[in-house]
Amino acid sequence: MNRNLVLRTLGLVLLCESLAMLPSLLIAIYLKENTVPAFLIAFFVGAAVGLVLVRFPVDPNQLSYKEGFVIATFGWLTLAIFGSLPFVLSGALSHPADAFFETMSGFTTTGASVLADVEILPRSILLWRSFTHWLGGMGVIVLTVALIPSLRVAGLQLFRAEVPGPTKSKVLPRVAITSRELYRIYLMITIAEVVLLKIAGLSWFDSVVHTFGTVATGGFSNKNLSVGAYENAVIELIIVFFMIICGMNFALHYRAFRAGEGRAYWKDPEFKFYLGVIVFSTLLVALNLWRAEGYEIERALRFALFQVSSIVTTTGFATADFNQWPVFSQMILLLLMFIGGCAGSTGGAIKHIRVLILIKSASRQLTRLLHPQAVIPVRLGSHTVSEEVVGTVQAFFFYYLLIFLGVVIFLTALGLDLVSALSAVAATLGNVGPGLGLVGPASNYASLPVAAKVVLSMCMLIGRLEVYSVMVLLSTRFWKT
Amino acid sequence: MNRNLVLRTLGLVLLCESLAMLPSLLIAIYLKENTVPAFLIAFFVGAAVGLVLVRFPVDPNQLSYKEGFVIATFGWLTLAIFGSLPFVLSGALSHPADAFFETMSGFTTTGASVLADVEILPRSILLWRSFTHWLGGMGVIVLTVALIPSLRVAGLQLFRAEVPGPTKSKVLPRVAITSRELYRIYLMITIAEVVLLKIAGLSWFDSVVHTFGTVATGGFSNKNLSVGAYENAVIELIIVFFMIICGMNFALHYRAFRAGEGRAYWKDPEFKFYLGVIVFSTLLVALNLWRAEGYEIERALRFALFQVSSIVTTTGFATADFNQWPVFSQMILLLLMFIGGCAGSTGGAIKHIRVLILIKSASRQLTRLLHPQAVIPVRLGSHTVSEEVVGTVQAFFFYYLLIFLGVVIFLTALGLDLVSALSAVAATLGNVGPGLGLVGPASNYASLPVAAKVVLSMCMLIGRLEVYSVMVLLSTRFWKT
Repeated sequence: MNRNLVLRTLGLVLLCESLAMLPSLLIAIYLKENTVPAFLIAFFVGAAVGLVLVRFPVDPNQLSYKEGFVIATFGWLTLAIFGSLPFVLSGALSHPADAFFETMSGFTTTGASVLADVEILPRSILLWRSFTHWLGGMGVIVLTVALIPSLRVAGLQLFRAEVPGPTKSKVLPRVAITSRELYRIYLMITIAEVVLLKIAGLSWFDSVVHTFGTVATGGFSNKNLSVGAYENAVIELIIVFFMIICGMNFALHYRAFRAGEGRAYWKDPEFKFYLGVIVFSTLLVALNLWRAEGYEIERALRFALFQVSSIVTTTGFATADFNQWPVFSQMILLLLMFIGGCAGSTGGAIKHIRVLILIKSASRQLTRLLHPQAVIPVRLGSHTVSEEVVGTVQAFFFYYLLIFLGVVIFLTALGLDLVSALSAVAATLGNVGPGLGLVGPASNYASLPVAAKVVLSMCMLIGRLEVYSVMVLLSTRFWKT
Repeated sequence: MNRNLVLRTLGLVLLCESLAMLPSLLIAIYLKENTVPAFLIAFFVGAAVGLVLVRFPVDPNQLSYKEGFVIATFGWLTLAIFGSLPFVLSGALSHPADAFFETMSGFTTTGASVLADVEILPRSILLWRSFTHWLGGMGVIVLTVALIPSLRVAGLQLFRAEVPGPTKSKVLPRVAITSRELYRIYLMITIAEVVLLKIAGLSWFDSVVHTFGTVATGGFSNKNLSVGAYENAVIELIIVFFMIICGMNFALHYRAFRAGEGRAYWKDPEFKFYLGVIVFSTLLVALNLWRAEGYEIERALRFALFQVSSIVTTTGFATADFNQWPVFSQMILLLLMFIGGCAGSTGGAIKHIRVLILIKSASRQLTRLLHPQAVIPVRLGSHTVSEEVVGTVQAFFFYYLLIFLGVVIFLTALGLDLVSALSAVAATLGNVGPGLGLVGPASNYASLPVAAKVVLSMCMLIGRLEVYSVMVLLSTRFWKT
């Protein structure tokens, strides 16, 4: 383990985070909010520690797989710990576990909150809270499109064929090039949504906050009723459109916009599956709301489309309290929390491509029963999925469920009811945000015991880092050699 | 497809089933119960149709894989349909869907019931109900130890190494030899339990009924309070012992008792895992009952041991209404419903050996992350598990969950609450019996809509036939060639 390299990178992370606090600090000064000292202290602490750490001398070419895993996990932890300082220092969230939960929720683009009333908070705090989403979304894109594939984690190595992938000896420069291209797209999408939401009638501040929540598929809002507060179909449709865009693989956007291959979308099996899931789930939920709850068809479709898009992309905005919807609709939403976005998006959870690979590899076993000697590869579009990837995806699925069940059992031991426990873990591990029961969209995570909040914060991290990146750190073998 | 062979075998099944009704018929005549005509008619209908079918001329050597799948699925369906005649004709269960549910539950050794009050039923009906368990248990043993391994289904081909396995050309004679040995053990266990329960104070009738429920890991009782009605620790311990014995691989019993290899038990990784799960779960549940409900330690252990053994072996007897237990204990029991017994037992669900293979194949993926070039086989004790088996087990797990979720969604569409729906499907697909909520141990499945009963009956069948045997019939490829 190249410890100096790890510490130096964490120092860089801290420096960036400190700089990222400056907009909130400026807003606080401009609006004369009482949060100025909080942001000032946080800025200087982060900058000071960061400056000490970046002094460690290292050879930049020594980044290997192992350092990648350590940096990903501890990088996010560092972001969440230092990022919670403004919440604690300003008194917005006085308990450190609450502040850690909220910040981890931000940086992992989860959007689960412990704040009961966000409308009373200072704007500088609200901006920081939403900005953690946007920064986290950026981090996720590098991680899942540029870095993780090179670490051969969890089946995402599929993208090596599509995005120019780094090799071991030159991880850093390749990651930098790919990342720059992807950031440009991320920024373009962000600007487009801010402008459209402003035109649709939101204030600049609300536009920015909801755009950060959308493009990062995060879900923090500055309204207690989330997007439902606006009761405006146009605003909802804009947000739906951008949630769906940001739940897609950014490598596809890159190919369409920077390489001019617009047809890339329609050639991508994951994208087609993703659209199919959204359409099909929307129809099922709308039908259920219409038949069981007596909604008019148009209203049922509007609510269903918004909530399905919000959950499947793991954003977590709400226009209705779906905790009051019929159990069938809740069950559909709960399932979507597991499927999540597409690989290479800012969305979380298992991801459509893995679900596709699971379905295809299971269905070939039936064929094998009848034709024992046949060699049947798993195909995705024109690609053949290697057996290595199939095995990794199946193991990923198993770990995901194992962690899910383990944490659910832990929460029930703390006294939570089954529906709240199941949905709280599904919503944090999948980086969705609101769940059902106690942690429904009209409620929040504040009422949970401290132990639950800490464990669910770790779920957000584990889910965000594609499970393996954290799991591998827990294996004794990792630290031995 | 050799249709004549299939029909002839179904004819044999029917003839056996008719003969199996004779004890109940004799009891009905002896006790002058009003069920005599019901059993007489059922006997003659079964015998007549059976005699017609067995006349189809066939070459017995033509049994191939395909016929095996068709016979397994339609054999169980035939048993359940004809076996429900006495219930319908005697008026014990007037709705055909109820009678079908109860009989399917019997033959699949599930033990889920639609009967609210079993104590008012005639003895002949109660005997038939429990006898379906015992017969089903026999069928399962042939199926999972002798037949299915030769069909290379779902990872059970592991046993080819341990039990003399049939080859394609001589399936029938080998199955017959293996089956005879296993039946002898099944019978010995049955006799031992009947005698012990009689000595412990039960009537002969109660002993027989509860023995049938135990050795088949079925769970039908002739008491409304199930085994809890006796409030007798000795009786409970006897039943716990035999439940655990019958949740074990019968091939192990064969090697210990017929081949004199008593050490075979302790060399078997599945058995050790199974015992570990029982001990660990018992301790967790007992601790929970002690801390959260204020049970005395001894009483907590007694209830926990019984319920854990009953659920993990997929028997489904109850000594307490665990629907009233704390959510943590319920969650443990719900998880055990998925794990189930050992392969080659009369128990259902996923089975310990598959869970072991899933754990080991997932954990090797972590090692592969660090050592990409390493070839790491999955090992069970001294055996190396082939990649074919690993792939089949992973696909099995995926199908199991897929069917589980699909049926849960269907039940919520019918208006069931989430806990009832989840546990009803887990308890039927896993051949356990009672679930939680609406279908808890103090309640029954009678209140569910007819559509739910039919679908849950099919879940019992799918679970009992190791999922693949039914799934393969649904693939178009199966019927093409």
